Amino acid sequence: MEITVRPIGLIESEFKNTAEIPRQSIYAPEKQARLKLLDDYKDGLQGLTCGSKILIIFYFHQSTEAPLLQKPCQSDKITGVFSIRSPHRPNHIGISEVKITKIENNTIYFTGIDMLDGTPVLDIKPVIS
Amino acid sequence: MEITVRPIGLIESEFKNTAEIPRQSIYAPEKQARLKLLDDYKDGLQGLTCGSKILIIFYFHQSTEAPLLQKPCQSDKITGVFSIRSPHRPNHIGISEVKITKIENNTIYFTGIDMLDGTPVLDIKPVIS
Repeated sequence: MEITVRPIGLIESEFKNTAEIPRQSIYAPEKQARLKLLDDYKDGLQGLTCGSKILIIFYFHQSTEAPLLQKPCQSDKITGVFSIRSPHRPNHIGISEVKITKIENNTIYFTGIDMLDGTPVLDIKPVIS
Repeated sequence: MEITVRPIGLIESEFKNTAEIPRQSIYAPEKQARLKLLDDYKDGLQGLTCGSKILIIFYFHQSTEAPLLQKPCQSDKITGVFSIRSPHRPNHIGISEVKITKIENNTIYFTGIDMLDGTPVLDIKPVIS
């Protein structure tokens, strides 16, 4: 079974390569970035507000491998890919929780970035606390 | 740009149709279900433990539409799809936070289910608190 998905927008961030990226967005609370939605999806932003948190579901577009067993960068212990947040994983899907600072036309400005510039975005969901 | 993803496993749950499903997994903390991983991915489970929480990223396989403006079932106000957790959304990707109760071979038993029986699973990630 194959499932086809299409980007709804792209990330614009200061991180141009993986070496510059923090391990998780919670470690970069002050960094600013933008999610530029494709024009077709603009109406879907209604109801999102500044100061609220969202989940950005995205595609690790620069990852080409997905070993089932990996050594996390902060550990010496080999572990299964589903117990860590590595970008090298089956289907290469990532999730970041970020905080909206501004919404202008079809662009969401946010803090908490850990995504590469040019990252394809697949979905946006509200954080339910 | 098209991205192809493939299920890593399937959900086995008591919910056979959408009318039986709670709106969010947090509203069904006592319900039990299983995630049966395809054999190829079994090694990826290493490091996951009973009692811990995971995010299951899945595909709303019975949803065929994705209007950008929707009326949530608990509200009369029309709002954008990205501000709600509706299954009817671009790319039909869902996320549930569940709690592992047992892991046996390639099957994860968990509570907190809000997914249909037969739901294709795309990824599993640890919850980082």
